[in-house]
Amino acid sequence: MAVEATAHEVDAAVRAAHAVRESLADRTVRAAFLRSAADELEAAKESLVEVADAETALGPVRLGGELARTCYQLRAFAAIVDEGEFLGVVINHPDDTATPPIPDLRRYKVPLGVVAVYSASNFPFAFSVPGGDTASALAAGCPVVVKAHPDHPALSELVAAVLRRAAARHDIPAGVLGLVHGFEAGIELIKHPLVAAAGFTGSVRGGRALFDAAAARPVPIPFHGELGSLNPVVVTEAAAAERPEAIGTGLAGSMTLGVGQFCVKPGLVLAPSGAAGDQLVKSLTEAVSDTGSGVLLDHRMRDNFLAGVAERAELPGVESPVTPGAGGEHTVSPGFLTVPAGRLTEEGAYDLLLEECFGPVTVVARYEDQDEVRSVLSRLPGNLTATVQLSSDEAAGNGRGAEILAELTPLAGRVLVNAWPTGVAVAAAQHHGGPYPATTSTSTSVGGTAIERWLRPVSYQNTPEPLLPAELRDANEPGLPRRFNGRLER
Amino acid sequence: MAVEATAHEVDAAVRAAHAVRESLADRTVRAAFLRSAADELEAAKESLVEVADAETALGPVRLGGELARTCYQLRAFAAIVDEGEFLGVVINHPDDTATPPIPDLRRYKVPLGVVAVYSASNFPFAFSVPGGDTASALAAGCPVVVKAHPDHPALSELVAAVLRRAAARHDIPAGVLGLVHGFEAGIELIKHPLVAAAGFTGSVRGGRALFDAAAARPVPIPFHGELGSLNPVVVTEAAAAERPEAIGTGLAGSMTLGVGQFCVKPGLVLAPSGAAGDQLVKSLTEAVSDTGSGVLLDHRMRDNFLAGVAERAELPGVESPVTPGAGGEHTVSPGFLTVPAGRLTEEGAYDLLLEECFGPVTVVARYEDQDEVRSVLSRLPGNLTATVQLSSDEAAGNGRGAEILAELTPLAGRVLVNAWPTGVAVAAAQHHGGPYPATTSTSTSVGGTAIERWLRPVSYQNTPEPLLPAELRDANEPGLPRRFNGRLER
Repeated sequence: MAVEATAHEVDAAVRAAHAVRESLADRTVRAAFLRSAADELEAAKESLVEVADAETALGPVRLGGELARTCYQLRAFAAIVDEGEFLGVVINHPDDTATPPIPDLRRYKVPLGVVAVYSASNFPFAFSVPGGDTASALAAGCPVVVKAHPDHPALSELVAAVLRRAAARHDIPAGVLGLVHGFEAGIELIKHPLVAAAGFTGSVRGGRALFDAAAARPVPIPFHGELGSLNPVVVTEAAAAERPEAIGTGLAGSMTLGVGQFCVKPGLVLAPSGAAGDQLVKSLTEAVSDTGSGVLLDHRMRDNFLAGVAERAELPGVESPVTPGAGGEHTVSPGFLTVPAGRLTEEGAYDLLLEECFGPVTVVARYEDQDEVRSVLSRLPGNLTATVQLSSDEAAGNGRGAEILAELTPLAGRVLVNAWPTGVAVAAAQHHGGPYPATTSTSTSVGGTAIERWLRPVSYQNTPEPLLPAELRDANEPGLPRRFNGRLER
Repeated sequence: MAVEATAHEVDAAVRAAHAVRESLADRTVRAAFLRSAADELEAAKESLVEVADAETALGPVRLGGELARTCYQLRAFAAIVDEGEFLGVVINHPDDTATPPIPDLRRYKVPLGVVAVYSASNFPFAFSVPGGDTASALAAGCPVVVKAHPDHPALSELVAAVLRRAAARHDIPAGVLGLVHGFEAGIELIKHPLVAAAGFTGSVRGGRALFDAAAARPVPIPFHGELGSLNPVVVTEAAAAERPEAIGTGLAGSMTLGVGQFCVKPGLVLAPSGAAGDQLVKSLTEAVSDTGSGVLLDHRMRDNFLAGVAERAELPGVESPVTPGAGGEHTVSPGFLTVPAGRLTEEGAYDLLLEECFGPVTVVARYEDQDEVRSVLSRLPGNLTATVQLSSDEAAGNGRGAEILAELTPLAGRVLVNAWPTGVAVAAAQHHGGPYPATTSTSTSVGGTAIERWLRPVSYQNTPEPLLPAELRDANEPGLPRRFNGRLER
């Protein structure tokens, strides 16, 4: 266990970060720093993965892949910093024909200030010290203070040292990346007057407590939290009839990937009753039975998983074709439950099945008709993803495909067709967020637009060119995409 | 006094709005509706201004101008809807060279749902029923329920009827624009499960209460509130020496405009001690003395103004070259206070001078040196605007101009040079917002980007073209600006 930071130490970390924010002011330096961070992480790969595996048991293959993703992400943000579209440059020359007349106005976005990042347990790299929140905040020009996750404190220290080494290569002081340990330190951090915004990936309970603290401050701050998601999947009757095996096998792969410890694990599957659905369940049964046991991230999670599964399995009418459970002293084995979808259409004890259960389990709700599907969907909380499995005819635009997409869109930030939600690409078109409790804001924590979370716009009015930042001068020497007197320039 | 809405009536208004959201789905219809709203408001101008003047005493000239601004704003949002850049379309074709590989991903923004709009007292058109919050929400595709301001209930009803008439011209049901009266109704509104976001313009106290209620909901929602702003002005020694009369007169005009009832009224002016500053104060004295009395929006405001001024004037060392006060039974006369800036550099009784006082009064703090200026600025809360008056030499880039701009930028959402903050243009480059308590979010309530408040992104993964919304298909038949495989297309 790492030494928990005192209030004084949290204060020192935040003040150190605040003090060095000017060192990130130059975009060229920022981009170079992000690339060096990726280089240094790759150079340290062997020791990082070893320490990470010792703390998380996620295995060197998965951890190596996650580190590669993390480095790709850092470089992707460097490219975003270089391009500069995220600055949102808008220039209006004076216009007396407007009502009221428009003076010379020039707008772009500036960094918010120190960002607090709360690490996740399940991604010791990609959603932790060097992850998307940190990368996007640094890209925006914001120093970061990370609250380490207690499941991988040594790795957190090691990574922080690597990032500071990268910073030093560009004369950026070590304060740019603070690191604190401990539950109380996390509370102190969100309350600190110099913390300007926060990013969080974790549980609904922990995230909501921090969200509430952020909102209750004398000066409230943006809190971008990713809290929890059920990730519903709808399988149409036609899809089940067309490829029951492929869907059963694909679902098994997605729900057991990473021992079911992904925030986008499909946790509720609406599959038709009848023969085609039976065939799907049979394939799922076989594929899940063939999937080995795995180690969960910590004992608390293992306890919660076993208790959560047991509580769900006890509900009358719930069956367990493959019983998830204790696979050994440290491991758990995957499984799934089935339930008639009709049980989920009204408030009651079965609402438990509409809550996320972290770990390798999913619930297959067998529906009788479209009304039941619609009724269950209408009762779901917000999600990161919603998926539909369609037949090839439906995918071609015949039947209810478009209608189902329209029903799923209000539920989630990412809607998938004939795919599985696990695997979150780092891309400009990515949205990893969704209605509460999926996220506490409308923002994404993955993909290019994640940078928007750490910026605020400022307009300069009637400001002489020599006093304007280079980004806002007519000449556009930095070559930024911008809106110039209404016209989009690229 | 209008009849206050019961909880049942609030519920009915929200449900009616929610039920008709699909009627705003078509962008062409939305844009046409906004233009018709402007047309109908103009057609009803005479009666609207008459009713508005009877309720607010703002006078037909100001009210006619405000209505023109409101119509301009509605049409500006129609143009924004037509262009469609606000949809933020991003398309990524599959890319196996990325880590992890990128699937087909297509992202744009969808309306959040029903928006609650809390009207302001001081702009019965531009920040009330047909104002920027309503216009931007409708432009985003969100139905609106307005909580009317108690200072102009009859006008609110009249305008709502005009907007519904415009809606009817495009077969949009009346529910698209709900209207409720009463303090309790406002609380019910923010708590309603089907309300998805809120916009507010008003006091720190009222706005914070609603912000807290929005954050405390089982499902928290975005609350975009504009609460209060001191709007500091720094006059450099060189500027005071160069044009003391122009600055004194300009300041008098800005602080007394609209009887000082603008959210961007300059409320604190840092002017140098010594002869040049004395000359500035002399000009200010003359100009303010020449400015007539005016009627404040309601008696509560008049009482608060008189009490606020008296409390400030009592502080030792505070002088009143022109004493603001009761100009008559219903009116108030403008004035200003002076204080040595040194009194404002430490926490204490003088902090009152750093709080907004709504009405025609400002505080001129006379400084001895730059350290005092910096020290006072460092103690200010967030602002909508911050202004600097520079000499022509400083404006040309010589001296401390850039440095002062850098000091003002963290304080405000709009920074002005040799101009006055009153008058908020409706423009793409506008930012009317700022650090708390100026606003409760990083958004703007004026200008094109105000539409961003009412949208959330959704990504579609692996979705066949026939099922995609037209906005996300490769062909781009709607002709939208977008990011296509990394390239910005315009």
